[in-house]
Amino acid sequence: MILIMTVTSQTIVVPQTIAFDAPFSLQNGQTLPRFDLIVETYGTLNENKSNAILICHALSGTHHVAGRHHVSDKHAGWWDNMVGAGKPIDTNRFFVVGVNNLGGCAGSTGPLSLNPETNEPYGADFPVVTVRDWVKSQAMLADYFGIETWAAVVGGSLGGMQALQWTIDFPQRVRHALVIASSPRLSTQNIAFNDVARQAIITDPDFHNGNYARFNTKPRRGLRIARMMGHITYLAEHGLGKKFGRQLKQNQYQYNYDVDFEVESYLRYQGDKFADHFDANTYLLMTKALDYFDPAAEFGNDLQAALKNVQAKFFVASFSSDWRFAPSRSHELVKALIGMRKSVQYIEVESHHGHDAFLMEDAPYINAVRAYMKNIVV
Amino acid sequence: MILIMTVTSQTIVVPQTIAFDAPFSLQNGQTLPRFDLIVETYGTLNENKSNAILICHALSGTHHVAGRHHVSDKHAGWWDNMVGAGKPIDTNRFFVVGVNNLGGCAGSTGPLSLNPETNEPYGADFPVVTVRDWVKSQAMLADYFGIETWAAVVGGSLGGMQALQWTIDFPQRVRHALVIASSPRLSTQNIAFNDVARQAIITDPDFHNGNYARFNTKPRRGLRIARMMGHITYLAEHGLGKKFGRQLKQNQYQYNYDVDFEVESYLRYQGDKFADHFDANTYLLMTKALDYFDPAAEFGNDLQAALKNVQAKFFVASFSSDWRFAPSRSHELVKALIGMRKSVQYIEVESHHGHDAFLMEDAPYINAVRAYMKNIVV
Repeated sequence: MILIMTVTSQTIVVPQTIAFDAPFSLQNGQTLPRFDLIVETYGTLNENKSNAILICHALSGTHHVAGRHHVSDKHAGWWDNMVGAGKPIDTNRFFVVGVNNLGGCAGSTGPLSLNPETNEPYGADFPVVTVRDWVKSQAMLADYFGIETWAAVVGGSLGGMQALQWTIDFPQRVRHALVIASSPRLSTQNIAFNDVARQAIITDPDFHNGNYARFNTKPRRGLRIARMMGHITYLAEHGLGKKFGRQLKQNQYQYNYDVDFEVESYLRYQGDKFADHFDANTYLLMTKALDYFDPAAEFGNDLQAALKNVQAKFFVASFSSDWRFAPSRSHELVKALIGMRKSVQYIEVESHHGHDAFLMEDAPYINAVRAYMKNIVV
Repeated sequence: MILIMTVTSQTIVVPQTIAFDAPFSLQNGQTLPRFDLIVETYGTLNENKSNAILICHALSGTHHVAGRHHVSDKHAGWWDNMVGAGKPIDTNRFFVVGVNNLGGCAGSTGPLSLNPETNEPYGADFPVVTVRDWVKSQAMLADYFGIETWAAVVGGSLGGMQALQWTIDFPQRVRHALVIASSPRLSTQNIAFNDVARQAIITDPDFHNGNYARFNTKPRRGLRIARMMGHITYLAEHGLGKKFGRQLKQNQYQYNYDVDFEVESYLRYQGDKFADHFDANTYLLMTKALDYFDPAAEFGNDLQAALKNVQAKFFVASFSSDWRFAPSRSHELVKALIGMRKSVQYIEVESHHGHDAFLMEDAPYINAVRAYMKNIVV
């Protein structure tokens, strides 16, 4: 009997943890004695291993891209609308790998993990990792699977930055890069918002210099504020207005600081939920990885020069109402690629979902990814 | 000898505190037993009292509009480039009144004041006041000066909301309204940012339910975060980029959570400075006054209907890069005024200073105000 594993939103997927038991040197000069990566895979790796797709996650994402962990799970993986049987990233054709990044808090080695040198959680001692470090660790993951070349590396937002870095650091090992709602580097405003988020966390008295675990607490207040603010930047002003307007929770002003407007209730809920499950040190290092990402920097701020050795073909997508990584940020990348005579397909999607649009079910966008993926030869 | 008082940036101005010793009922149903307003005046009220200008301040503004309090003051008043002898709001022609709003923390009755009923600072017990309450108290201030009709009421941002409310609540008492970088009501996104700021303050353990004064402390962390975030929204993305770019404080990444980028240093400094001098309860109530402002609400969300009885002539200005109160928000007001056949002059100023542009020295803007003010008959 041949087992055909069809991946649907209802499929129960089982993550696996892969150990890398050798010292891993980081861009900041530090060395991790060892690390684990937790991954999920969907579909089947073909014989010549030419159908592998790596999905890179954004700030708060994980390896759990598609399917469910338990029958009772309310939600499927974070990109379940994109990855699965018959979906744009079709698991009947491709072998798809989701990975939680180094420094994450969903199972890969990160600040919550035990530091083998002290047998205590790393906490504040976990090093600040970079997009380049992630890509290097993901290359080791490819080696583990025996994948010499990814058919595609795909990501939105911070995930798109990893896809771009892949094409620069390992030009021979990636045939296609899908860089969605991303940017070749953060703007000053992006960095500014990140720093406010970090300051909210760091100045929370429960932060304890990052070693909150030892005090059996976590900086919930700071994480909550960071997420509430972040959430505003993920949504378009217009979309937020359409969804909530000035709708009141009750039918009159309260004249106090409880909830007046529905949008307040929504944001506080999002903040609370996030503070419950996310690790503050991971949040801090993820925002730093965003801030530091700047592949052109080593090339005299010349993005074209940074792309010189790139062999991958690009699919770049941006969303009209995304003001975190506006279409103009994608244009920078597209122009540099064109300037270097690289292959690039670009779509600018009309959307009122802001930055979050890359996670949404939007037909022109989804179909564009579908069409691009169909043309990838395996 | 006749004393000609010419108001320059070097002029030492002396604020005065005016007592209103009668119960004052508020929009929320509460009553203040009495209140003080601290004011500054510049120029001379003419005999028929037809040259009086009221300046309304924004979120963190005060009565100190022009001149200096001490020879050693590093800065002049917050709108010193606009108000003074020979300046657009010319104190050689006009009698200009600056007032700290009720609920403020610069001398008018507010959360820091003693509650006469308890002989303790109001703190959290200070009522949530509204733009309408402010206008009502400012009308009492006009009575105090014997001013039946303001030649103009002028304000930027939240100050512009007061100018607009004046024309609705006291149509006979204001001849001109200058509504600058303002909006007829907040957007959902505006409200959302305000709530994050409030939550940062309220969840600071030093907030003590608003009664921090009793604990000899203040929610500095929360105020700092609120101001850092607010500051980003006052500045244009492009302007922030031009000023700071990705400039580093030191010449390499630190790989920690100290300052890497100049913009971080700038924002933290702004946050610290604000947390030192501003009162948290005032910050909270000012943001609520912003959220609640919505003159069209009582008229079935029909702004035109709200403007029906307006007699004032309007000058409306917006700034291209202002994304807090974008030009489109001014358009709403201008369209409604035109729809009601009211007199309105509108200027949309090209600027990369964002919302803060209304405080800046920008020739086309300054000259437009100058020209408008020159045509006001006294």
